[in-house]
Amino acid sequence: MKAVVLEKAKELVIKEIPIPEISEDEVLVKIREVGICGSDIHYYNQGRIGDFVIEKPIILGHESSGEIAAVGRNVKGLSVGDRVAIEPGVPCYKCSYCKAGKYNLCNKIVFMATPPHDGALCEYVKYDPHFVYKVPDSISFTEAALVEPLSVGYAAVIRCGIRPGDSVAILGCGPVGLAALEISKVMGASKVFASDLNAYRLNIAKRHGAFVTIDADKNNLVNVVHQYTEGEGCDCVIEASGAEKSISESLKVAKKGGTVVWIGLGTDVASIQYMDVIYKSLRVEGLFRYSNTYEPIIRLLDSGLISVSDWVSHRFRLEDIQKAINIANDPSINKLKIIIELS
Amino acid sequence: MKAVVLEKAKELVIKEIPIPEISEDEVLVKIREVGICGSDIHYYNQGRIGDFVIEKPIILGHESSGEIAAVGRNVKGLSVGDRVAIEPGVPCYKCSYCKAGKYNLCNKIVFMATPPHDGALCEYVKYDPHFVYKVPDSISFTEAALVEPLSVGYAAVIRCGIRPGDSVAILGCGPVGLAALEISKVMGASKVFASDLNAYRLNIAKRHGAFVTIDADKNNLVNVVHQYTEGEGCDCVIEASGAEKSISESLKVAKKGGTVVWIGLGTDVASIQYMDVIYKSLRVEGLFRYSNTYEPIIRLLDSGLISVSDWVSHRFRLEDIQKAINIANDPSINKLKIIIELS
Amino acid sequence: MKAVVLEKAKELVIKEIPIPEISEDEVLVKIREVGICGSDIHYYNQGRIGDFVIEKPIILGHESSGEIAAVGRNVKGLSVGDRVAIEPGVPCYKCSYCKAGKYNLCNKIVFMATPPHDGALCEYVKYDPHFVYKVPDSISFTEAALVEPLSVGYAAVIRCGIRPGDSVAILGCGPVGLAALEISKVMGASKVFASDLNAYRLNIAKRHGAFVTIDADKNNLVNVVHQYTEGEGCDCVIEASGAEKSISESLKVAKKGGTVVWIGLGTDVASIQYMDVIYKSLRVEGLFRYSNTYEPIIRLLDSGLISVSDWVSHRFRLEDIQKAINIANDPSINKLKIIIELS
Amino acid sequence: MKAVVLEKAKELVIKEIPIPEISEDEVLVKIREVGICGSDIHYYNQGRIGDFVIEKPIILGHESSGEIAAVGRNVKGLSVGDRVAIEPGVPCYKCSYCKAGKYNLCNKIVFMATPPHDGALCEYVKYDPHFVYKVPDSISFTEAALVEPLSVGYAAVIRCGIRPGDSVAILGCGPVGLAALEISKVMGASKVFASDLNAYRLNIAKRHGAFVTIDADKNNLVNVVHQYTEGEGCDCVIEASGAEKSISESLKVAKKGGTVVWIGLGTDVASIQYMDVIYKSLRVEGLFRYSNTYEPIIRLLDSGLISVSDWVSHRFRLEDIQKAINIANDPSINKLKIIIELS
Repeated sequence: MKAVVLEKAKELVIKEIPIPEISEDEVLVKIREVGICGSDIHYYNQGRIGDFVIEKPIILGHESSGEIAAVGRNVKGLSVGDRVAIEPGVPCYKCSYCKAGKYNLCNKIVFMATPPHDGALCEYVKYDPHFVYKVPDSISFTEAALVEPLSVGYAAVIRCGIRPGDSVAILGCGPVGLAALEISKVMGASKVFASDLNAYRLNIAKRHGAFVTIDADKNNLVNVVHQYTEGEGCDCVIEASGAEKSISESLKVAKKGGTVVWIGLGTDVASIQYMDVIYKSLRVEGLFRYSNTYEPIIRLLDSGLISVSDWVSHRFRLEDIQKAINIANDPSINKLKIIIELS
Repeated sequence: MKAVVLEKAKELVIKEIPIPEISEDEVLVKIREVGICGSDIHYYNQGRIGDFVIEKPIILGHESSGEIAAVGRNVKGLSVGDRVAIEPGVPCYKCSYCKAGKYNLCNKIVFMATPPHDGALCEYVKYDPHFVYKVPDSISFTEAALVEPLSVGYAAVIRCGIRPGDSVAILGCGPVGLAALEISKVMGASKVFASDLNAYRLNIAKRHGAFVTIDADKNNLVNVVHQYTEGEGCDCVIEASGAEKSISESLKVAKKGGTVVWIGLGTDVASIQYMDVIYKSLRVEGLFRYSNTYEPIIRLLDSGLISVSDWVSHRFRLEDIQKAINIANDPSINKLKIIIELS
Repeated sequence: MKAVVLEKAKELVIKEIPIPEISEDEVLVKIREVGICGSDIHYYNQGRIGDFVIEKPIILGHESSGEIAAVGRNVKGLSVGDRVAIEPGVPCYKCSYCKAGKYNLCNKIVFMATPPHDGALCEYVKYDPHFVYKVPDSISFTEAALVEPLSVGYAAVIRCGIRPGDSVAILGCGPVGLAALEISKVMGASKVFASDLNAYRLNIAKRHGAFVTIDADKNNLVNVVHQYTEGEGCDCVIEASGAEKSISESLKVAKKGGTVVWIGLGTDVASIQYMDVIYKSLRVEGLFRYSNTYEPIIRLLDSGLISVSDWVSHRFRLEDIQKAINIANDPSINKLKIIIELS
Repeated sequence: MKAVVLEKAKELVIKEIPIPEISEDEVLVKIREVGICGSDIHYYNQGRIGDFVIEKPIILGHESSGEIAAVGRNVKGLSVGDRVAIEPGVPCYKCSYCKAGKYNLCNKIVFMATPPHDGALCEYVKYDPHFVYKVPDSISFTEAALVEPLSVGYAAVIRCGIRPGDSVAILGCGPVGLAALEISKVMGASKVFASDLNAYRLNIAKRHGAFVTIDADKNNLVNVVHQYTEGEGCDCVIEASGAEKSISESLKVAKKGGTVVWIGLGTDVASIQYMDVIYKSLRVEGLFRYSNTYEPIIRLLDSGLISVSDWVSHRFRLEDIQKAINIANDPSINKLKIIIELS
């Protein structure tokens, strides 16, 4: 089978490798679509993200969907031909984090396309069936792959604790910010402010129900939000850019007693107005990945309450992965989500 | 001015009484529309609800909207001509419940049309401005009056803690049950089961997004819900009928680890399957009225996220209040919400 | 090795059976002490509890402690000679309840001494090491065995959400009620009311910090609690008797806005004053077993914050199990916890 | 009567002013003891704290206790001679924050000794009776005055959500940090780490149950905590110093999935390791003052569960206020809480 292998920074090859053999407790998934995430591009460009370093070649890709191609004999609830979404992190199940339902914090989690673990940009993947979720025919393979970025937004919004009628600010309109927008709307946010530096993305935010979109380069985000909220700020703020300036602003656009969720990856260090957190008695939550999100998101997609098909700006076949990477790296090209199709 | 006064059980008169004079801390509201609630009818029919007894004549009505007609000189934020919704309970502000934000539990709350306090079925009401809420032009006087029954549904859904994608069962499709349906949908419920004994109301539930509607007389509610949920039951259940059978069933349609909110008024005593609560580790919450709901509901109505204008089955002028009562009391007539218009 | 086997109702034998062989993922525990639980006695007397029926012989006992006797080669963190407490339920790890941290609700949980699963009243048990917890030397084998009943109390108190300074009522002073008392005190309850029908148990409650103890036969529990709380009732109530009268009273002794946790096993059906739940906006939670309690309880025992050694009223050697059962079944004998010692 | 008036920075005088006259809704409190807070000293030294500037003379002091000297005729529940603690902030009661129970966030709160409002360092204070709390004879006037700093610690610990058996780190052992220590212990913290730069304060922390005390100048706080927690960090962290270094460390000593509460006043800006918050999915809460704390703290003091009398390092009579200020400002003198006694 073919696999997209990152040998080291900037060296991507399509390799022919054997189809994996499954144990009696696993399923084999024929991959159909894979979304390209910022982390894939980051590993391609830098060969590392923080402490995660490409020390041996790995297969990229962790936003994936496909069809069940084979089923181990101990596996229940999945059959050959089932259309599925794959949750890319499989935890140890047995540590204190896993036992407490916070498996995203598991120290032993095997997460796709995070060194040294292989990802899904290949024709077949063998997998733990408890992290493979059937999707109904109403959900396309593209949407099934996008349950992954939707998961980060879902987890962020749940941690925010949005109540119907709340005002929400979303800082950064990449896929994760747009996911947070989509789930905020479905949870009853009455006014969602969305900021980004990119007009193309702000347009998508507008189309998905943002109340006001703000070009954070040209406008003072904090002023705009205060202007529309009688100087109060927003009940809930989700920072999805990872930019230091935006992290600081996330505290300024929050209302007294409000909640701020940080999910953006980017800067390591941030200088914040500490007294904003004190005087406004803010709740600030960081979030690393997600847990227990796939099932509710699939139900939301199935019931038509959320819709993400127009997130896709580009589609390529596996063979054209290098073109996809080049477009991802070209700042002159507007894009949101690039999908790789496997025949 | 004219006022609808309940002298004692079954004796309703339209009286001419003086327009109230406001203090410097009050506003005068010219009432425009008032919804008839089941409790108004109950006081008319029985002269009491539990310990609340009509011992002296009171004005009926507590779901009201109007226009500011005069403003005390200490009052800020309201002006003559403002269109408003009136929250019918004014608490003492200063007891431990009020200080903790649970003013619905205040022992000294003055609640409209609950003996011995007068209600809003009259031309003018003087009121504490902190419980009078401006509504934008996008919200009709009918909708503004219906913020009151929506409040019970809002409070119930918040206590339920619905997460996007959850399944919800709503038992009883009167205005409060429909309010819970409306807010459940806006909070991301993927499947809402609605039951009632009345086909007319089930139709309205269907129109407002119920996934399955169940005539609880003709069908076994518990079986139907289990059939559609793979035998699991619903994440959230809201009992809005107050019928003993339904209270017991509310525990049976809940999923393991699920939540049940009881808001229906009706029976005093209920026999329940206690072990349902234990084995499924249910959370069951009772709810009396609401607090802090008017502002978010007004935002939801303003943003078009919820819509209740089609709840109104009948409209009468103040002069025809007896006709309204008669229709409310006629079981052969389909109805949901009866609105009284004041010219 | 010797094992206490319940052949069928009222037929208990001490059998000689082979020592279990462990897989590479298991540990072998040499059992040192086992507490007798009401459920053991119930299976002995009736041969069933609800749907759980003794259809083949099983070993009794699920409150156990011991020493590691052998360790599978894949097992980390446990060594031969380690002193341990055994959590008696091992869930499937992989269903949606387990993934969400609510493994007590797992449909596939294997729970000791619950038909058809064997318990710990035998010399050796093979076990999943993730549910075997090391205890420091400061904790006796008796205390280690009693982490099990403490777990129910711990889970109840956590669900109650006691805040320092709260008043608490505990209905039923068996081991589970006393566990709730112990954890309530350690969580800052200022006044704990404890009721039971048995003076011996009320004495133990008094010794462990109960503010007032109430013989529920001789005194009106509801009146006594209201008398000491200015007619308000308690912030938190834990019903640990399972008696119908007490279930109903649990709602009456709760304060407006308060919380009631039901953990008592007993009656199937209960008649409750439904309007108590509504008017007081109570939160009522049922609780079946527990999850994630062993580690914090071991830390509490280790730090001396809780103490349960005086719960033990009787001790027997394995050979004398029938005497233990007889005492448990003799209403004329005061008892709280009977411990079986394995040499 | 005598009053301690801060005319402007560094100008403190004892003035003779009239005893205030109460309205029919107020009480007059004869002040008995007042604690000196860091903010009193800050106003004395700088004439301002942030945006709060001494533009006209004010009476200092906001940690106070006394006896009821007169009662307005509308006041219920308080009588002449009652021993009381005074909560120093009286909110507007009627804004959305007050109605939601978060009156500490009220924009119109009148807070003692915060310009332009007078404090309690005088012989008589007239006050809103709803923020005057009776204390039983078991509580001394000193303890009653110290309910104020205890309140900050109480609110911090409640926001932390400590569960029995949790590990806790407290950074900064001034009165607020020690209050957090005291309430953490009463809420079941099994191990409390306490850090400060002052050996005298660390000794008091040790005496009040700190598991390990750390001189943050001489030792690496983060290393010490990790050493005692198997590299995991603490479940809960309370930062009570306001020092930038300590704010940053508060994120480093927290366990994955842990909670950090910031209550220290000091630096305006802080540079933090942003990715600590993300990777560990921390919850960080800022806290400004407190609400609804006086009643539970009085119950805790009354029941003997907490004890703060040994916090007092110095006592002066009102006449010697300047000596008290001088000692507070002398870094060579060990001190914790200075109490001013009014005859």
